Amino acid sequence: MTTRVARVGSLVLGGGNPVVVQTMTNTDTRDVSATLAQIKSCAALGAEIVRVAVPDRAAALALKEIAAESPVPVVADVHFQASLAVESLKNGAKGARINPGNIGGPEKIRSVAEAAGKAGAVLRVGVNMGSLDKEMLAKYGRTPRAMAESALKEVGLVLETGFSNLKVSLKASSVQDTVAAARLFHELSDIPQHLGVTEAGDLIAGVAKSAVALGVLLNEGIGDTVRVSLTGPPEDEVLAAYAILRAAGKRMRGVEFISCPTCGRCEIDLLALLKEVEGRISDIKEPIKVAVMGCRVNGPGEAADADLGIAGGKNKGTLFVKGKKIKDLPYSALAAELERRAREVARETRLEAEKTRE
Amino acid sequence: MTTRVARVGSLVLGGGNPVVVQTMTNTDTRDVSATLAQIKSCAALGAEIVRVAVPDRAAALALKEIAAESPVPVVADVHFQASLAVESLKNGAKGARINPGNIGGPEKIRSVAEAAGKAGAVLRVGVNMGSLDKEMLAKYGRTPRAMAESALKEVGLVLETGFSNLKVSLKASSVQDTVAAARLFHELSDIPQHLGVTEAGDLIAGVAKSAVALGVLLNEGIGDTVRVSLTGPPEDEVLAAYAILRAAGKRMRGVEFISCPTCGRCEIDLLALLKEVEGRISDIKEPIKVAVMGCRVNGPGEAADADLGIAGGKNKGTLFVKGKKIKDLPYSALAAELERRAREVARETRLEAEKTRE
Repeated sequence: MTTRVARVGSLVLGGGNPVVVQTMTNTDTRDVSATLAQIKSCAALGAEIVRVAVPDRAAALALKEIAAESPVPVVADVHFQASLAVESLKNGAKGARINPGNIGGPEKIRSVAEAAGKAGAVLRVGVNMGSLDKEMLAKYGRTPRAMAESALKEVGLVLETGFSNLKVSLKASSVQDTVAAARLFHELSDIPQHLGVTEAGDLIAGVAKSAVALGVLLNEGIGDTVRVSLTGPPEDEVLAAYAILRAAGKRMRGVEFISCPTCGRCEIDLLALLKEVEGRISDIKEPIKVAVMGCRVNGPGEAADADLGIAGGKNKGTLFVKGKKIKDLPYSALAAELERRAREVARETRLEAEKTRE
Repeated sequence: MTTRVARVGSLVLGGGNPVVVQTMTNTDTRDVSATLAQIKSCAALGAEIVRVAVPDRAAALALKEIAAESPVPVVADVHFQASLAVESLKNGAKGARINPGNIGGPEKIRSVAEAAGKAGAVLRVGVNMGSLDKEMLAKYGRTPRAMAESALKEVGLVLETGFSNLKVSLKASSVQDTVAAARLFHELSDIPQHLGVTEAGDLIAGVAKSAVALGVLLNEGIGDTVRVSLTGPPEDEVLAAYAILRAAGKRMRGVEFISCPTCGRCEIDLLALLKEVEGRISDIKEPIKVAVMGCRVNGPGEAADADLGIAGGKNKGTLFVKGKKIKDLPYSALAAELERRAREVARETRLEAEKTRE
């Protein structure tokens, strides 16, 4: 079924809106400048909601300045203490992630819901396989069914207060459990879902697990907002999220790089060239496709669906546009010329999009 | 439909056998010792077939020593020149990847098929979106349909020779095209499929694209062998392939690491600790689940489905088994104790598996 919408400040998600990309800071929230710097660098890469840990009162207080300066809505991550959620919401958080089952009973839930209502904020009901509702755990064991039923029960606890601006997350470290739980909840409720695999591991394992889970679910029309959890910088989480959404055909934002796995035919340091090009044009927001290929013979043809690209070779390289070779250039001038042309293509894409909108 | 089997030397794939993991060297194939070193390090991580580029006769000759010393079947990657495929197969390659449409006509195809037959080798018919059959390109455009029909036509060219030990690959740099082409071919033919997204990009984009494509296809029962193409070391391709297969519930091999995204509550350098643990136990082949968590309070519970794990904290850490805290240890002794216990668990897992097999 189509989910209902939820509002995170002025951001609307669910109900068929574009899938929203989230991440979470790993700074000490009380360190306002470090936290803000990380929020801003993630927002520049496309993060649309950023969550911060609020383990104590000082962190909730720091939110005042953080939320005021943040270019995107900030959500407070709170465990056990309803008062920290209330304080965060008063200080500008546009959402709080809570576990209604462990926050201290109906009165506490009501106090958080009231604060969220006043703030125009969302509440995320977060259920993890590691923190299941005791009744559901006893009834269903450590299973996806127990996760979905826990989420439904805890959503019910909030709805009883009359507050309904909600989203839920059902996270497990197992991909198969995550997928099964999300499907079950999707059958049971129209509350929008935040998708993610928790404790996913290092870069390779984390991206792989998240991409399989999100790929399968998004392909089935499940998922309104996503986070790719990685043990690493949150900026990587944002890049990975867009790579997954792009792969799933859900959102096209920024440069899609096409580059060949280097093989025995490759005569240049392709990874270094790719990194240089990425450094130059990763700030482009328009959805363009740029190829960086190792081989002047096969590269242009193999990357014919790229908007433009370069293919390296001994001493010189080739610039190509839509598979057609445009000119040869000395190796040292290749990346700069690609950047110039990519910005042109991005500008045309932007103008085209603006024209369509008018 | 269930695919038929194909034989790569003594390795059997297709027909419901476990999905086989491949990679490709990026060394100069003529450099025998560098190529062999890379093959061995990939094989140690679980690569079961390794492809090498054969761009000239010297590379085909080098295969003699490479194939003899390689712990896994070696496949020659050949473009245009049938004679290089024949030479490679004579020199010990257990497979050749060719594009029958551009290798020089029926006689050339017959010569390659004969050499493959004598060698007990497989032929991979490789179709890329960038190298479509001209007739199919004219008829269907640059579409997944054109890829599937090209593959079917080129498979037919080989089958006409009487040789049928085949697999196919249909690769595009677009995930959606890759998925659509694989589905179409799967409806048309029972030839086993090698899955991969070509020119997938850097680590994050490459793993994300491959995982979405393979996740969706494997979930539908499509795919007999896989490669994760990355612009980077082939060892990463192998690690990523297993991470994807594990996430898709297809193959469990080696350590699955569970680790939390560091948040504002984390008091240790979790990424460094994770890397140390990975360095110590990544060689373990048995499918065990090891958690490396940042927080002694929530870590053990959140990672309760891990076989064992450690959770860091200021100065000391905690060792836990199946969610239960076993003991506290000074931070410096944590990784070593985890390694010792992980090897014990791996050993028990191995003995258990051997017992079941008897």
